[in-house]
Amino acid sequence: MVKVMATGTFDILHMGHIYYLKEAKKLGDSLAVVVATDSTVRKLKHEPINPQEIRLNIIKELKIVDEAYIGYEDDKYEIVKEISPDIIALGFDQLLDENEIKNQLKKRAIKVKVVRLNELKGGSDLEGTRRIISKIIAAYDFQKDMEKIEKR
Amino acid sequence: MVKVMATGTFDILHMGHIYYLKEAKKLGDSLAVVVATDSTVRKLKHEPINPQEIRLNIIKELKIVDEAYIGYEDDKYEIVKEISPDIIALGFDQLLDENEIKNQLKKRAIKVKVVRLNELKGGSDLEGTRRIISKIIAAYDFQKDMEKIEKR
Repeated sequence: MVKVMATGTFDILHMGHIYYLKEAKKLGDSLAVVVATDSTVRKLKHEPINPQEIRLNIIKELKIVDEAYIGYEDDKYEIVKEISPDIIALGFDQLLDENEIKNQLKKRAIKVKVVRLNELKGGSDLEGTRRIISKIIAAYDFQKDMEKIEKR
Repeated sequence: MVKVMATGTFDILHMGHIYYLKEAKKLGDSLAVVVATDSTVRKLKHEPINPQEIRLNIIKELKIVDEAYIGYEDDKYEIVKEISPDIIALGFDQLLDENEIKNQLKKRAIKVKVVRLNELKGGSDLEGTRRIISKIIAAYDFQKDMEKIEKR
């Protein structure tokens, strides 16, 4: 039984997330997903749209996912010890330093293979969170412009 | 084997959708989901954020879902004939006229029970698409205001 671990924010689920999780699971038999805490998301990206509990609960509903957890604040390697995966799968576009991760794991004597996934066709870029957000904002701007015209 | 049918737009998946699908499935053994076409969404609600294929594909990834299809344009009862459910589950907040549906089904000699689900605690209202969209817009407005201040 090969256990694969995947990580991410998973705020507003899109097909890029699904592709990433499917590619990750192909590396083994079982998939454990670590969902970043709200404060980690704030530090690395932006204010999360959905709080961590909701992001976790939605991930748990996916067929492909066998286990899912919220990460730790202080030491992100603690959850790796607990999950004890055989492989950690990094998304092709995840801003994580592979070598730094390998060093940190070695320092903690955690034996796990780290695999960087290849870019997927039709993957996260096209169908990602940013595309969804910009569509919402474009619709909102359009609506505001229409209101201005109506007021004239 | 009791087959339940549920319907919706399912644009930007949230916990309200999951609660609705779980309550629907409780009525039977197997769950078939009909995802509204883009043109139906345009007619009834607004421009969809995600196109119908993506909305369908994400719904198919849910553990709770056994089958999923895109609805028909002209006669929405055609898909009911094809799926042949024992029960149609209407969400508590779905703007569908129960009696009108029952009449239309009768006219077509489709034998199926129509059940209106009760409102769920912590359900769609709190965690719905509108809440997600307004959070995105609030963040966008805040960012624009900050840019204005910086320009002064």
